[in-house]
Amino acid sequence: MLVVMQSHATEEQVRAVCQRIESLGLKAHPIPGSLRTAIGITGNKGEIDLGVLESLPGVVECIPVSKPYKLVSRDAKEEDTILRIPTLSGDVVVGGGHVALVAGPCAVETEEQCLAIAERVKKSGARLFRGGAYKPRTSPYSFQGLGESGLKILSKVRATYGFGIVTEAIDNESLDLVEEYADVIQIGARNMQNFSLLKRAGRARKPVLLKRGMSATLDEFLMAAEYILSEGNYNVMLCERGVRTFSDFSRNTLDLAVVPAVKKRSHLPILVDPSHGTGKRHKVLPLSRAAVAVGADGLLIEVHHEPDKALSDGMQSILPEEFAELADEMRQIAAILHRTIN
Amino acid sequence: MLVVMQSHATEEQVRAVCQRIESLGLKAHPIPGSLRTAIGITGNKGEIDLGVLESLPGVVECIPVSKPYKLVSRDAKEEDTILRIPTLSGDVVVGGGHVALVAGPCAVETEEQCLAIAERVKKSGARLFRGGAYKPRTSPYSFQGLGESGLKILSKVRATYGFGIVTEAIDNESLDLVEEYADVIQIGARNMQNFSLLKRAGRARKPVLLKRGMSATLDEFLMAAEYILSEGNYNVMLCERGVRTFSDFSRNTLDLAVVPAVKKRSHLPILVDPSHGTGKRHKVLPLSRAAVAVGADGLLIEVHHEPDKALSDGMQSILPEEFAELADEMRQIAAILHRTIN
Amino acid sequence: MLVVMQSHATEEQVRAVCQRIESLGLKAHPIPGSLRTAIGITGNKGEIDLGVLESLPGVVECIPVSKPYKLVSRDAKEEDTILRIPTLSGDVVVGGGHVALVAGPCAVETEEQCLAIAERVKKSGARLFRGGAYKPRTSPYSFQGLGESGLKILSKVRATYGFGIVTEAIDNESLDLVEEYADVIQIGARNMQNFSLLKRAGRARKPVLLKRGMSATLDEFLMAAEYILSEGNYNVMLCERGVRTFSDFSRNTLDLAVVPAVKKRSHLPILVDPSHGTGKRHKVLPLSRAAVAVGADGLLIEVHHEPDKALSDGMQSILPEEFAELADEMRQIAAILHRTIN
Amino acid sequence: MLVVMQSHATEEQVRAVCQRIESLGLKAHPIPGSLRTAIGITGNKGEIDLGVLESLPGVVECIPVSKPYKLVSRDAKEEDTILRIPTLSGDVVVGGGHVALVAGPCAVETEEQCLAIAERVKKSGARLFRGGAYKPRTSPYSFQGLGESGLKILSKVRATYGFGIVTEAIDNESLDLVEEYADVIQIGARNMQNFSLLKRAGRARKPVLLKRGMSATLDEFLMAAEYILSEGNYNVMLCERGVRTFSDFSRNTLDLAVVPAVKKRSHLPILVDPSHGTGKRHKVLPLSRAAVAVGADGLLIEVHHEPDKALSDGMQSILPEEFAELADEMRQIAAILHRTIN
Repeated sequence: MLVVMQSHATEEQVRAVCQRIESLGLKAHPIPGSLRTAIGITGNKGEIDLGVLESLPGVVECIPVSKPYKLVSRDAKEEDTILRIPTLSGDVVVGGGHVALVAGPCAVETEEQCLAIAERVKKSGARLFRGGAYKPRTSPYSFQGLGESGLKILSKVRATYGFGIVTEAIDNESLDLVEEYADVIQIGARNMQNFSLLKRAGRARKPVLLKRGMSATLDEFLMAAEYILSEGNYNVMLCERGVRTFSDFSRNTLDLAVVPAVKKRSHLPILVDPSHGTGKRHKVLPLSRAAVAVGADGLLIEVHHEPDKALSDGMQSILPEEFAELADEMRQIAAILHRTIN
Repeated sequence: MLVVMQSHATEEQVRAVCQRIESLGLKAHPIPGSLRTAIGITGNKGEIDLGVLESLPGVVECIPVSKPYKLVSRDAKEEDTILRIPTLSGDVVVGGGHVALVAGPCAVETEEQCLAIAERVKKSGARLFRGGAYKPRTSPYSFQGLGESGLKILSKVRATYGFGIVTEAIDNESLDLVEEYADVIQIGARNMQNFSLLKRAGRARKPVLLKRGMSATLDEFLMAAEYILSEGNYNVMLCERGVRTFSDFSRNTLDLAVVPAVKKRSHLPILVDPSHGTGKRHKVLPLSRAAVAVGADGLLIEVHHEPDKALSDGMQSILPEEFAELADEMRQIAAILHRTIN
Repeated sequence: MLVVMQSHATEEQVRAVCQRIESLGLKAHPIPGSLRTAIGITGNKGEIDLGVLESLPGVVECIPVSKPYKLVSRDAKEEDTILRIPTLSGDVVVGGGHVALVAGPCAVETEEQCLAIAERVKKSGARLFRGGAYKPRTSPYSFQGLGESGLKILSKVRATYGFGIVTEAIDNESLDLVEEYADVIQIGARNMQNFSLLKRAGRARKPVLLKRGMSATLDEFLMAAEYILSEGNYNVMLCERGVRTFSDFSRNTLDLAVVPAVKKRSHLPILVDPSHGTGKRHKVLPLSRAAVAVGADGLLIEVHHEPDKALSDGMQSILPEEFAELADEMRQIAAILHRTIN
Repeated sequence: MLVVMQSHATEEQVRAVCQRIESLGLKAHPIPGSLRTAIGITGNKGEIDLGVLESLPGVVECIPVSKPYKLVSRDAKEEDTILRIPTLSGDVVVGGGHVALVAGPCAVETEEQCLAIAERVKKSGARLFRGGAYKPRTSPYSFQGLGESGLKILSKVRATYGFGIVTEAIDNESLDLVEEYADVIQIGARNMQNFSLLKRAGRARKPVLLKRGMSATLDEFLMAAEYILSEGNYNVMLCERGVRTFSDFSRNTLDLAVVPAVKKRSHLPILVDPSHGTGKRHKVLPLSRAAVAVGADGLLIEVHHEPDKALSDGMQSILPEEFAELADEMRQIAAILHRTIN
């Protein structure tokens, strides 16, 4: 924390701020400048809220310096975290140059639908299957998902084709079931700061895929992951899915720069979901290519064999044959960056 | 829904879109213009996702027309909803010209703290007391609230001073307890789209105060309220607490225009929380005055008798004596608008 | 500037950064903390871009500390700037507790229109008249303003009713004319960072009203004003007119918190334009009241006697009789805050 | 335009709105739905502002349907515009599968600097050289560019290495000179809605590179280009350079989805500037790869041989050897998409 004093702050005011800092058990380091004095603070381990210094006489503002996250930080672990998700067809590896393809419908609708899509995306090389059994929907009158019977359908997809299953939990009850039936527990964007759910996910024995909230800063995103790690679950993948901005031509603004930004600060792998990020089919393909090129550790792509009959988000799903072509292009782009898609 | 065709769309393409609409059991109304044809759609009760029409040949875009909310809308109920919150000192009325003052600390810390603040804000005329027993915090290492023992302290505040108690629930477990101990169940901004929690709140027998999410559009905000009403609980107050924008001088950007906007579309009362909305003490006072002037049905204001010792958000709390003066000014401003503060 | 080092930065890396700073003629102040070292820098008068330090080995980030503005800052001048705009009916005073009402149509259309509106708003006590002769329009096919003949109409309004005239300049050529015909030169939001125009305004002998850009941070806003002051023109009023956010129910999001924020940092007066800020007639009235309550030094309000025939922005104009009522309410609200409307 | 009526609007109200529309010389098409009536309007060629209908009794809102742009639209010209920029080493082609590399320093500093950088980026295959002689800077105290002598240095770069020169004009005076000395006239983000400058650029005989404003919607961006085309200059390239959002880890949020979005609506080529878009060196490389992968028609990349001595924006410049490697990767990625870099 750095306290910036007004240019006409008196020496007494500077001294009073320093005394206040010391009275909190911290150390004050006044730095007199040509225009004004700033006061560095050391010794705070994050437990003291220093914002109140801002109201002392002569203070302009308080600037936080140390980042609040610990376990997710490269300060705590320099090398990339590499996750291994066990499946019937062997481990799927995510991170450290290994790029994962997660494909499937937005929502689990019927066994036939899931098996039909699964068969096709498997041919294109996807080894993780996505599909929502619990759907967070803006409207209470929209389809809310099949619940546990949806999870059973996903189990069948796993048994039939050897996929690892990625599916969303929306509360503690559904998380219990997702942990039982699936291979990766997804926490959606709307629940990124549902701290009660994050803590529960931190006690789960399955990897967690955490989506960035619609208006989450990078620090908030990493702190949400910190909640999970702090409860003991270190198997966390992050996922960018678009943020909310003034821009109105796409549902969200896919913030691909977050990929190198996360990699600079954290050892956790980060995936990209261009389907939710763009909300429109004709943007999913170009942005999927871009996501691989920017260095994402995986992609979540909505694929539906009959998108115009989909019960939710059909307009952002691509066809299995489009996915096949895309997977091929992504493999080539990854190769240029010395990365491999598995 | 309106489907806009390309200017060089063929007649066959227009016909194909119409047939597709009719095949869904809806009615198509083509409107040929000088430049292009648009196709109106009627008969959709919200259950069909028409976004997929956007991928038909010749279509430029699909524009939604009907608003998705029903019960919260002035279409469903023209006159203002007026809530009555029973307290030991009589009903507190919110809405329809009655402005509520909700005051208290950010977090419940100790019985002494709460009673000291309660005594002072009561003198200034506040009749609803706020204070968090469950605190959603960005960091897992920050103070998370006292839980049930915090609720017991709030009960004591009610018994001692006759306040109605407003406090936040963060998951189903805490909601059970909040419903038991408090008079108004608060759903925080981070949980505005925690639909599982909204449904539970919709089954509660106490009024709900729903805060706007950090990046919630007006439609999403009203749809979140719709979740609560659709489960049978019609006693809902909305609350603006600032949205997230590029603007970096305050923690959030308080969007006061949402007050007249809500009042145009919905019969529900809307309050304003200028403490979270601004995040800085020196902005709380002017924005509280502005919130009354813009027509808010109530204010939530953080008051702390020792803000620099507060365990959370001390820098946005005002002193009891500042609150006293503010309450007085707000009363005068309300009177100019023919409204009364209770 | 503060340079934050990685927690595992070596002593040599810290030393290298310090040497680099010293080689630029500045002074380095290393502050060793429990987790990491930060390095304060003093002696920089703003002319050296220190961002490059961020790419030195071991550096996490560079945090700017000193604010870049000088002349607009309260550091340079503690007391409020009070502007006096000479008119035929005596000086109009802006700032220091004096609140100015600026009323008139969005665009100057005809002499009859302007005189009709002027007559009515004068009765309500407005002493500054607004109206655009040069209109920055999103579309090249929209009405672009009457140009110099519009300025002549405004001159007539001044001569007839004694108003001070506020009107926009959009380039150097129009600024020459506006300076000649009007009393206050307005720089619009879209030109807030048209630095060529700002410099020209800085050499003008008339006061300048500078609107905040659609996505300008507070620092950028104040720096734009700094451009004008640095050329010698100290008679600058700022004006908040709404910023661009994700929020879609109003044209812009009026950021009223900028008023106390400006007042904390700068001595310049700040006005509010709720007409552009909201874009809808039914929001102009409540937000005008809120702007006075938040402490604005003036309001710009679009008034049109026949808004549905207006050539631009009719939907955000209010009627003269609405303005009369509003002016009365604003006067009462100002009085509560010990301020006067003139 | 579509007018949406309230669900309880009376037949008379609907009739009144229709009459009002017809009185404006337009045609009204009422569409009675199960819940409410909507009224389509045809015959408007863009010159009538229909927003005022929103204030008629019974109206909920007015939804614009036709896009306001004409000449830039694919409605006006279906096939891609392909620009040819003549240089001493032959035409550089932009658009229609041809991807342009524009490289060079942020600001022209000295002849030595420019020639040194030019020599190196030429080896990597760049054929367009960028460098600012007029610099729009947030602070009046920052380096503002060398002006005409900077343009002369750029001329020398052209003569020596055969580059086409891309450089920014900031007002009418500098545009005259840029048109004389350079091959492509750049209009910067801050001037995207400086309509006076856009009109002047529309009368220039050189191609224009128009950068997206910091908070420009897609419609505003295309309308700004429309200003240039409407004055007769059809040689326009668009350029995404990042938009302003709440996200604080990069200077701007690069909105790569705008590339497919522009391509759907407009025939104009669109480039990407990842240097300004990210503001940090370690993000420039990954986002440059992503920009090619998303289908951009060109890239503007800041290259400096001594970035830590740069007079402006050194922290976002990459080294010539980094550029060489990047150019190579971009060529490979372009090939996968069947595009060529020239």
